[in-house]
Amino acid sequence: MVNGASNRIAIIGASGYGGLQSIRLLKDHPKFDITYLGAKRNAGKAWNDFCPYLPLDHNPLIEEINIEKISEVADFAILSLPNGLASDLVPDLLDGGLRVVDLSADYRYRSLEQWNQIYLKEASVRQRNDKHLCLEAVYGLSEWNFSKIKTSRLVASPGCFPTASLLPILPFLNQGLLEYQGIIIDSKTGTSGGGRTPQEKLLLSEAAESIAPYGVIGHRHTSEIEQLTSEVTGQQTYLQFTPHLVPMAKGLLSTVYGRLRDPGLTAEDCRTVLDSFYRNQPCIEVLPVGIYPATKWVRNTNRALLSVQVDNRNGRVIFTSVIDNLIKGQAGQGIQNLNIMAGYEQELGLPLVTFYP
Amino acid sequence: MVNGASNRIAIIGASGYGGLQSIRLLKDHPKFDITYLGAKRNAGKAWNDFCPYLPLDHNPLIEEINIEKISEVADFAILSLPNGLASDLVPDLLDGGLRVVDLSADYRYRSLEQWNQIYLKEASVRQRNDKHLCLEAVYGLSEWNFSKIKTSRLVASPGCFPTASLLPILPFLNQGLLEYQGIIIDSKTGTSGGGRTPQEKLLLSEAAESIAPYGVIGHRHTSEIEQLTSEVTGQQTYLQFTPHLVPMAKGLLSTVYGRLRDPGLTAEDCRTVLDSFYRNQPCIEVLPVGIYPATKWVRNTNRALLSVQVDNRNGRVIFTSVIDNLIKGQAGQGIQNLNIMAGYEQELGLPLVTFYP
Amino acid sequence: MVNGASNRIAIIGASGYGGLQSIRLLKDHPKFDITYLGAKRNAGKAWNDFCPYLPLDHNPLIEEINIEKISEVADFAILSLPNGLASDLVPDLLDGGLRVVDLSADYRYRSLEQWNQIYLKEASVRQRNDKHLCLEAVYGLSEWNFSKIKTSRLVASPGCFPTASLLPILPFLNQGLLEYQGIIIDSKTGTSGGGRTPQEKLLLSEAAESIAPYGVIGHRHTSEIEQLTSEVTGQQTYLQFTPHLVPMAKGLLSTVYGRLRDPGLTAEDCRTVLDSFYRNQPCIEVLPVGIYPATKWVRNTNRALLSVQVDNRNGRVIFTSVIDNLIKGQAGQGIQNLNIMAGYEQELGLPLVTFYP
Amino acid sequence: MVNGASNRIAIIGASGYGGLQSIRLLKDHPKFDITYLGAKRNAGKAWNDFCPYLPLDHNPLIEEINIEKISEVADFAILSLPNGLASDLVPDLLDGGLRVVDLSADYRYRSLEQWNQIYLKEASVRQRNDKHLCLEAVYGLSEWNFSKIKTSRLVASPGCFPTASLLPILPFLNQGLLEYQGIIIDSKTGTSGGGRTPQEKLLLSEAAESIAPYGVIGHRHTSEIEQLTSEVTGQQTYLQFTPHLVPMAKGLLSTVYGRLRDPGLTAEDCRTVLDSFYRNQPCIEVLPVGIYPATKWVRNTNRALLSVQVDNRNGRVIFTSVIDNLIKGQAGQGIQNLNIMAGYEQELGLPLVTFYP
Repeated sequence: MVNGASNRIAIIGASGYGGLQSIRLLKDHPKFDITYLGAKRNAGKAWNDFCPYLPLDHNPLIEEINIEKISEVADFAILSLPNGLASDLVPDLLDGGLRVVDLSADYRYRSLEQWNQIYLKEASVRQRNDKHLCLEAVYGLSEWNFSKIKTSRLVASPGCFPTASLLPILPFLNQGLLEYQGIIIDSKTGTSGGGRTPQEKLLLSEAAESIAPYGVIGHRHTSEIEQLTSEVTGQQTYLQFTPHLVPMAKGLLSTVYGRLRDPGLTAEDCRTVLDSFYRNQPCIEVLPVGIYPATKWVRNTNRALLSVQVDNRNGRVIFTSVIDNLIKGQAGQGIQNLNIMAGYEQELGLPLVTFYP
Repeated sequence: MVNGASNRIAIIGASGYGGLQSIRLLKDHPKFDITYLGAKRNAGKAWNDFCPYLPLDHNPLIEEINIEKISEVADFAILSLPNGLASDLVPDLLDGGLRVVDLSADYRYRSLEQWNQIYLKEASVRQRNDKHLCLEAVYGLSEWNFSKIKTSRLVASPGCFPTASLLPILPFLNQGLLEYQGIIIDSKTGTSGGGRTPQEKLLLSEAAESIAPYGVIGHRHTSEIEQLTSEVTGQQTYLQFTPHLVPMAKGLLSTVYGRLRDPGLTAEDCRTVLDSFYRNQPCIEVLPVGIYPATKWVRNTNRALLSVQVDNRNGRVIFTSVIDNLIKGQAGQGIQNLNIMAGYEQELGLPLVTFYP
Repeated sequence: MVNGASNRIAIIGASGYGGLQSIRLLKDHPKFDITYLGAKRNAGKAWNDFCPYLPLDHNPLIEEINIEKISEVADFAILSLPNGLASDLVPDLLDGGLRVVDLSADYRYRSLEQWNQIYLKEASVRQRNDKHLCLEAVYGLSEWNFSKIKTSRLVASPGCFPTASLLPILPFLNQGLLEYQGIIIDSKTGTSGGGRTPQEKLLLSEAAESIAPYGVIGHRHTSEIEQLTSEVTGQQTYLQFTPHLVPMAKGLLSTVYGRLRDPGLTAEDCRTVLDSFYRNQPCIEVLPVGIYPATKWVRNTNRALLSVQVDNRNGRVIFTSVIDNLIKGQAGQGIQNLNIMAGYEQELGLPLVTFYP
Repeated sequence: MVNGASNRIAIIGASGYGGLQSIRLLKDHPKFDITYLGAKRNAGKAWNDFCPYLPLDHNPLIEEINIEKISEVADFAILSLPNGLASDLVPDLLDGGLRVVDLSADYRYRSLEQWNQIYLKEASVRQRNDKHLCLEAVYGLSEWNFSKIKTSRLVASPGCFPTASLLPILPFLNQGLLEYQGIIIDSKTGTSGGGRTPQEKLLLSEAAESIAPYGVIGHRHTSEIEQLTSEVTGQQTYLQFTPHLVPMAKGLLSTVYGRLRDPGLTAEDCRTVLDSFYRNQPCIEVLPVGIYPATKWVRNTNRALLSVQVDNRNGRVIFTSVIDNLIKGQAGQGIQNLNIMAGYEQELGLPLVTFYP
């Protein structure tokens, strides 16, 4: 990796899962160089001691987060921090001339008021003054906001649930093919979606050999999804979103139930709609009618697999959509956005085919 | 277990999961004795050699299926056979004076024609002449058909998905509180639901670290569920049922989405509806509002845990319901029915509290 | 459970896995009543709110640990606390007239000095003055110390690894059939062996789809095992013990490699040795030669399954031994000891057959 | 992948796990082209329909196995077939001018007689006349037989257990640092080691939440390992090898116990021995003393991670070694050998760093 001066990447929040995935993906990237690794908890450690399963050349030190230093050594920053913390750093990073991809929720809402309401706990311990940045930030659903991302200084990478859930329905909502009310999203995620900070419910002893819903009614990602569906339809939409915790480390499946406006559409018709929309998108694949995806089919890749089926008895359409929650659902899409911002092919350096089994 | 002559049980189909669970549960049952173990594949073997993890006193032989012999030594028969095979045996067993609990789908439909359509493959290799038995058989959802089961000669124990999915919604449909169209059932099951016969998709190598939908549109249990919802509402209902395969051996969760007829009902109101209905049912527990069940909470028990939540923004009601797919979803409910038929407390000998974790 | 005044049990440390298992087992016990639930972290909560998957009649309050109160309401105490904490309470509990089963390591060593060395961290924050109790305490390997346990005031229940590892070899060492040096114990445990306190390495995201050794050389249980093997052989033994973390919640397997003193012994001979020793032990089963146990065969039971094989080429004997690490390896053996102390059948109220799968 | 005419690869046995991994690895390989996909079971199907999670450009047909055709279109063949079948094909393939990497056991023994004894069942249904090829074949433990592999026509890739177990001990045996008798290898493997053909014991319902030994005494890989240890030491060695089935899809760990000839060697000394030996081997990494590898650290990579520890109390040395059983333990090492045969860097196109978690 010998790159030009404009391809230097700082990773801030290196020891969580988002950081780990970012580093792993960038390690093999043909155009980007990691020039800064910052973290709070593990600052001062040599990377390879901290992380023997992901050794880096020259065994870099994990550094304290220092904006000035970052501005000197990097052109882009990937922020993989707990919600709220990014907003403490982003204004200064932008002032320092960096372009930023933030993996947290801090800039996903165009309205700071809404963020303050939904991320109540995070909002209660800080006073944000970056309303303008919320408006400026581009929602980084790569396939949907490609051209805005290209020129953006600040990209808010979407949550894992919104990514998987929006990809199949946005084309239908956009073309007015789907009733915009009454959509039901039943999602299933692996435990790594809950992060790396130890919690009782994420212990193998607790989560193994079990599936359970959580955050029924009012999970934070509901509003994030609704922001997009409302924007695309021009109508305030209210949908049902229920996440479930599945006994696996990685992977996310959304099963989305809607109602076709034209009940005459067949499954093949619907597949054509999706396929036309995503035909030139290297990170999205639409499966043949009757083939349903498993999360394992995309593990460790930046690909989303979509499928659509129609129940002719009642006009229902059922979408299924799988991603790797930490790759296309987080760090991979972050680097896809980085590729777009830097003018490269969006899939550059991103794995698209899994190792099976 | 020294019992009266009328508590002798034959288990037919002893080596599959339904048989194994039945034997395990009956081994500890205070009133029933297993007097006959029949199986096709493993006939001739001594039980304890075949099954060292479930040793039986006196190490009985697994026998060829012989109706005459069964009639002599047993009062009740539990059939745990692949679909279709029960209908080959049941008429003769009833003629022999036995009372039968069938764990297969053979007598779940009141209409033999419908069974012939839905179990097409099984129907194609046999000509059933037991239309009258289809009509006579009682659908063994224990809490729903208690008094009919009590006096029945032939009980068709429900499928695992119908059990978990119907329990929360029948009280609402029965009282006209739920719109009977548009119900969506998103179910998740462990691999043992697919049986013990080796199949590639059920290998740990394939199913682990993955979740996937299957049988989207037209899974056989759809019609079984609809038969009940139509019966209870007096209207032909069409609902959406989507099963998913979860990387765990046991457990089943149904997340059911419906719409309240009276949008003024709160979650507490809905909980009260469920709780009133099931208050005296020892095998069903309704959780407090805001507590959602994990399948692990009922593993190896005959209990169903139900929860209900309401989204006031759009009048949606969301039910969650967990069971052990092989116990309350199969063999345990079979024995619950046996208890009812024999005049015992329905939960006699059935575990109701799990070992956690 | 209406019991005499001498069967009242206090559980101290109710919210960890040892406490949970103890409560679950005692809930169904025909002779003991739980009359006190004490915990530090969750004191003040109503039990059923804290633990909806294990509801108790009358929904008792979790109480602060109060020795005086415990002495009033209980005859026996089960202590399930982090190492070190038991020694803070046990002297007073004994003074208060209780008989104590301690599930921690505090009284497993006859020498307080050794405990101070091995449990260095725990010893560094307290000054223990209960040398006499270390000498008085009986090591609660139930089958081995039955008669001492019967009359003891203080039983130190063994660790999970020592239990599984010692059961197959003690009869051989005792009879001088096995070389006492050079024994190798390769153990494999589920994650619940690491307790319920959240730790990164026990997260499903980390531990799933992986196996790893830990504590190679010098794991604390090495000395606990050696204490017994030295005692039985009358020789200071040094053995090799290596634990491994397996991606499952529960279960423990020890594969033990030794060398026969008489190389002419066959596998059948060795099986006879084990079987003769344990024939009347309800919680131990010796498998036929050529059948090897899976941990799943004893999940949620208080049974150990043992197997033995001999390699005639080199005189090696290989023992395999499985237990449920939280039952026979912890709380179940604790209650087995309680049964012995109270004069009941040792297996009273303890499950011995698993639900498979 | 536009390659010279001498880099065309035929994969025979494409639909099992060995085939799948080979195809996945070659898909990204910069120098090799897959020009033929042969299989028995799935011949006639279009690849992408059979395998939607591993789509190939131009969606090739799976072909019947036709030696003449293979000889025309390929320079190398990778055989991934059940034991015995390779020996039916290899003589003709070699005659057709191909160079062959066989992933089965057919050519791992220099003595056909020994193969006939150990692979008794396979030998009973065929009469092999390729004694000379057994002698000619090179045992494909890449790091050990590098120069012989380079010029070989026929490479027998080692089994997964021998690969993981031999890598840490061969350098010690070779230098006379380890006693060559009394070695104990306790191995743990994921279920994919048992292949893709459905078997009851490999079902998730059976294998999950459990660990069990199998093939205690006399597993076939014992003799394969002993062939190498005997060769290297010049002495007939007899060692103990016990495999265990772990509830995970992929990954293999060997914990190897031996005795140092010079008991004065420290763990650091032993690490130096290993490290010196493998310093220039890109697929092998020796961990610092005190760091033990998890199988997850090498999942989906062709890397082996080794660790060594010494117990000074008794002169024992303990090696731990992890690989991905299907990559470095099978198909990856096959391609490593292919790279060597074709004169490329041995790690060309092979992933060496995992995606964690």
